[in-house]
Amino acid sequence: MANYRPEMTDAGIHSLHETTVLDEHGEVREISLTGERPLTIYLDKREIVTLMTLGSYPELLTLGYLRNQNLVDHIEDVVSIQVDWDVESVVVTTRRAKENLDQLLSKKIVTSGCGQGTMFGHVMDSLSELSLQCPSFSADSIYQVLNALSEYNEMYKKAGAVHGCALCTGEDIDIFVEDVGRHNAVDAISGWMWLNGVTGDNKVFYTTGRLTSEMVIKVAQMQVPLLLSRSGVTEMGLRLARQVGIGMVARAKGRHFLVYSGQQEFTA
Amino acid sequence: MANYRPEMTDAGIHSLHETTVLDEHGEVREISLTGERPLTIYLDKREIVTLMTLGSYPELLTLGYLRNQNLVDHIEDVVSIQVDWDVESVVVTTRRAKENLDQLLSKKIVTSGCGQGTMFGHVMDSLSELSLQCPSFSADSIYQVLNALSEYNEMYKKAGAVHGCALCTGEDIDIFVEDVGRHNAVDAISGWMWLNGVTGDNKVFYTTGRLTSEMVIKVAQMQVPLLLSRSGVTEMGLRLARQVGIGMVARAKGRHFLVYSGQQEFTA
Repeated sequence: MANYRPEMTDAGIHSLHETTVLDEHGEVREISLTGERPLTIYLDKREIVTLMTLGSYPELLTLGYLRNQNLVDHIEDVVSIQVDWDVESVVVTTRRAKENLDQLLSKKIVTSGCGQGTMFGHVMDSLSELSLQCPSFSADSIYQVLNALSEYNEMYKKAGAVHGCALCTGEDIDIFVEDVGRHNAVDAISGWMWLNGVTGDNKVFYTTGRLTSEMVIKVAQMQVPLLLSRSGVTEMGLRLARQVGIGMVARAKGRHFLVYSGQQEFTA
Repeated sequence: MANYRPEMTDAGIHSLHETTVLDEHGEVREISLTGERPLTIYLDKREIVTLMTLGSYPELLTLGYLRNQNLVDHIEDVVSIQVDWDVESVVVTTRRAKENLDQLLSKKIVTSGCGQGTMFGHVMDSLSELSLQCPSFSADSIYQVLNALSEYNEMYKKAGAVHGCALCTGEDIDIFVEDVGRHNAVDAISGWMWLNGVTGDNKVFYTTGRLTSEMVIKVAQMQVPLLLSRSGVTEMGLRLARQVGIGMVARAKGRHFLVYSGQQEFTA
């Protein structure tokens, strides 16, 4: 595991911008703004997508995006990932392009606009075969993760307008990613897991964002059996989590949280 | 204005689901969950996209989506919009399909995954020609809008996991839409404006969500000159707002807010 590494740039940026605003009394205040930059992915010289990102982990984001969209099958197929912010792009070279790449890209016609389209249908099919086992967990174990996470959320505290996601093993934070979109943060974590040969079992996935169906689907694809969120849950997100067997703890703030799924594994 | 109306269903649903959760003490609690349903848009018998939606305004969402994606040019071209939740779809019939529909759909290959791709590039080009005039506004006028809005955010208060958007004229709320995604809420408001022949001038657009570049672009397309948010702002969102001339007030909660753009029009 984790022996193979593509040739990669290390072009992560921490973009905080200062700007001058007026408060409600008309007083001038200096505040920090979250950066947001376009990053266009080229896969074997083909333009695939432009993502709007904070830019902290552009290589991991690219890897995770290609993995989650099924555009590359194995990490070993990736020869190099070269980010160049001057031209706001990342160039990915693979050993062999997927034969049905045209077909995969054309199918995405109906998945644009933040909807899920036919991809959604396919993923739903694959989910029906997936069965995870939510581990036993206690209120103390949840508090431990939340405590460990409280040191993070750095950009959020400074400038807001980002979502944070983390992969945790017990109370250890494996990786914490903030980005302007939840999707990007999840994709970057997925890319990190791929690169490091890390599987989802015995992990906890944390997000500041809402647990909609698409978030649960992504976490299920990563095979993480326990999901923790500061925010709320949609009915479909919950239904999918219960179907796959993912434990779901949400509205986790301060000393409060609610257990939505995996209740039989929970000890107060 | 607003004389033409396509034949439309009135299939809005208010989907709150009850479920049983455990709190951190292991006590059973009954809570409300936000519904989230797939809605697949068929335009002249072609499958366009599947959106995940709360479902309050499926006809307006469909109209706004087709408008904002430039898939239909004039509201008068739309003959009928028929939502059928039993098959989770909406069938749109137009007088004449756009000639370059294939081309438009194929271009969206690179805009999927919540990125902006080439569509983003095209929209950016069109933005450079756009110039709006932020109106004069005072702290009192902002408080009036916020007060008027406090009665809304109904689903959010009950079940969370939604974003709310509103179009306001002074302190009057023209329309308030909640949905599981910000995009859907904005699209539904755009659909309402199209259907009712309402233009953006003298309006204020409110959102609970963050002001990223894509939100500013959508509001600019709707030609609304003043933007108000409970949440934060990204650097690119601010840059676009200043470029187009849109006033931007964010972090508006309680008695506090910050004026990011249009400061010269603001009176405390």
